[in-house]
Amino acid sequence: MGAELGRLTALGLIAEIGPAASRGGRRSTVIDIAGDIRFVAIAVDTGAVSVAITDGRLRIVAFERTECDVRQGPEPVLELAAERARGLLAKAGVEQPLGVGVGVPCPVDFRRGITVATPVMPGWDGYPVRDLLARWFECPVVLDNDVNVMALGEQHAGAARTVENFLFVKIGAGVGCGIVAKGELYRGMDGCAGDIGHIQVADSDAVCACGNSGCLEATFGGEALARDALEAVRSGRSPMLGELLERDGTLSAAAVAEAVAAGDATSLQLVRTGGRRVGEVLSGLVSFFNPSLIVLGGGLAVLGHVLLAEIRSVIYRRSLPLATKNLPIVLSDVGEHAAVIGAARLVSDEAYGVPR
Amino acid sequence: MGAELGRLTALGLIAEIGPAASRGGRRSTVIDIAGDIRFVAIAVDTGAVSVAITDGRLRIVAFERTECDVRQGPEPVLELAAERARGLLAKAGVEQPLGVGVGVPCPVDFRRGITVATPVMPGWDGYPVRDLLARWFECPVVLDNDVNVMALGEQHAGAARTVENFLFVKIGAGVGCGIVAKGELYRGMDGCAGDIGHIQVADSDAVCACGNSGCLEATFGGEALARDALEAVRSGRSPMLGELLERDGTLSAAAVAEAVAAGDATSLQLVRTGGRRVGEVLSGLVSFFNPSLIVLGGGLAVLGHVLLAEIRSVIYRRSLPLATKNLPIVLSDVGEHAAVIGAARLVSDEAYGVPR
Repeated sequence: MGAELGRLTALGLIAEIGPAASRGGRRSTVIDIAGDIRFVAIAVDTGAVSVAITDGRLRIVAFERTECDVRQGPEPVLELAAERARGLLAKAGVEQPLGVGVGVPCPVDFRRGITVATPVMPGWDGYPVRDLLARWFECPVVLDNDVNVMALGEQHAGAARTVENFLFVKIGAGVGCGIVAKGELYRGMDGCAGDIGHIQVADSDAVCACGNSGCLEATFGGEALARDALEAVRSGRSPMLGELLERDGTLSAAAVAEAVAAGDATSLQLVRTGGRRVGEVLSGLVSFFNPSLIVLGGGLAVLGHVLLAEIRSVIYRRSLPLATKNLPIVLSDVGEHAAVIGAARLVSDEAYGVPR
Repeated sequence: MGAELGRLTALGLIAEIGPAASRGGRRSTVIDIAGDIRFVAIAVDTGAVSVAITDGRLRIVAFERTECDVRQGPEPVLELAAERARGLLAKAGVEQPLGVGVGVPCPVDFRRGITVATPVMPGWDGYPVRDLLARWFECPVVLDNDVNVMALGEQHAGAARTVENFLFVKIGAGVGCGIVAKGELYRGMDGCAGDIGHIQVADSDAVCACGNSGCLEATFGGEALARDALEAVRSGRSPMLGELLERDGTLSAAAVAEAVAAGDATSLQLVRTGGRRVGEVLSGLVSFFNPSLIVLGGGLAVLGHVLLAEIRSVIYRRSLPLATKNLPIVLSDVGEHAAVIGAARLVSDEAYGVPR
C-alpha cells in the first residue's frame, strides 16, 4: 500500500492535503486525488463530436459539442476534436492533460487502439486513432466504442453507480449496448460485444445496412424512425408530421416526440411499435444476462416515457419473474454527458492502474 | 506465496513430492496436489442422478448414473444421490471426501445454497440442498445450476480449456446456457443468467410451462421433440417413428436420431426446424456476447451433426462477420461427464480459494 501511494504521488496522481483528525497514536495524513489533474474526453457520435475537460474526479470543467458528420472519415473528425480540445485546454489554462479518453460509434480493437470496419463509416477501418491522438497530445490515449464509454459514464455518475451487472442501451441513429459484468466492462472476444442492433426482430423484413433483413436497428433507431416518419407524411397518415417537416426541412426523433406530445396517433404508433421491438430484444437479453439494471440513453431518449413504458411492458411480460422482480429499467439521468464522463473514466482508470 | 503454500499444505491440499532437478543454487521442492484428495460430485438431471468420485486433479475414479425423476421432490433424489456417493466412497476406500459439488436442473440461490422455484420441479423451491448435504457428508458443499457446472466441466476438461469467453448450451429436456466471461462463471444478479429456454422464437405459438408462448424450449428440446414426434406418428406423417414407438413404447431424441439416420424425412425436418430455432436465439446471443466458442451438450447432442449443421448455418448467416470470423461451434467432447467434472471443479475451487 505504501509503495503504491509512493508511485501515485510520484506520478502526480495523488497529493497530501493535510493531517487527518487525531484519533490518538500515529497521526494519519489525508490523501486526495491531485487537484491539478485534467483529462481530455472526446466522444464521437455519428452527427457530432463532444469534447470535455474533466478534473481528476471526472467532474466536467469545460464542455463543447460541435456538429460534424462521421462519414467524412477519421482525419477531419479527429482534427476537429483535437482543435476543440486544444481550445478548451488553453481557455482553462491547462498545459498538459494527463490523458485522453475517446469513444467512437463503431467497433474498436481495444488492445491495438484502432477502429474496425463498419459499413456506415467508410474510411475508419483499421484507423490508428489511439496512436495518432497520443502523438498530438503527447500523453496516454485510450480508445473504446461509444456505448462502452457511455456505460462507464453511467457507472461513474449515473443510476448504475451502485450495481455490479447492468446494460446500457443506446438508441441513437442505430442501437447498441454496453455491458458491465461484475463491475467491469465486458467487450467480448473481438470487442464487438453488445452489438444488439443486428439482432433479428420477429415481424420485420426491413433491409439493414449489414445486408441482412429484420435487424433491430433497421426497424427502430434514429434512421429508421426518420424513414418511417417521412413515409407517414408521404402516405398522408400524419398531417402533423407533414407540418413539422415543412417547418424544419427534415424529420428527427425530436419532431416525432413533439407530434406525440401534441396527440398525433400515427407518431405514437411509430414510437410504440419501435419500443415493442426494442423490448422484445431486451427481454431475451434479460433472460440471458440477468442484469440488476437497464439504463436507456442516446438520441431517442427524447421520446421519453412513451418509449420507456412500451419497453418496460414487453420486458416485464416476456421475461421470467425471477429475472425481473428487482429489475429497474430507467432513462439515463446523465444524458449527453455520459459519453465524455465515461471516456474520461476510461483513461483515468488506465492512469491509476485500475484493471479493465 | 510461501504463506499460501503453508496454508494449503496444512489443509492437506498440496504435498511435497520430492526435490526438483538441480539448477545450481538453492534446491527447489516439487509441490503437487495431494494424491489422497477425493471430491464427491453430484449432477442431478431431470431424469437421472450422476454421482462421481474424483481425485484432486478432478480425474474421475468412480462414476455411477441412476435413473430417477426429479419431480419426486428433493428428499428422495438427494437421498438416492447420497446413498450412491457413500457406496462409491466405501468401494474406493475413502473415509472422508474433501468436499461435495452439486449441480441441479433449476435456478439456484448460489450464496445461500438453496434451489429456487421452477414450475416443472415442485417441492424444490427454497430447499436447503447445500446445508443438508454438508450435514450428511460433514464437509463443504457447493451448489449450482446444472448448466453452470457443465460449463465448468467444459472449461476444465473440454474444448473450452483455452478460451476466456464462451457459452455452453445444454439442449436436454429444456434448453439452458452456462456463461463464462473473462474466465469466470457469470451467474447474473439472481443466479438465473443463461436461462435462454424462455427467449421467444420468431414463428411459434407453442405454449410453455412458464405461461408464455413461443419460448425456445416450448418449441425444441427433449420434451418438445417427443411431443412433435408423437404428433408425427398420430398424423401418419412418419410411419418409421410409428415403428420405433411400437418397439420402445415411447419416443425419445435417440429414436428421432435413429429415424434421421435411416432417412426419415419427417424426423429430419423436426431436427432441422429445431436447430434453426436454436440457431436464431444463439445468433442474437453471439451479437450480444461475442464469445470465442460455443459448446453444445445435453441429451439432444445425440442428434449430432444434423442438428449442429443447422445451428451453425443460422448463426453464420445471421450474426455479423466480425463476431463469427473466429467462432467455433462444436459438440461437447466431454459428454455425460461434463456435469460431474464441473461439480467437482466448483468445490475444488472453493477448497483452494479460487475466486468465483
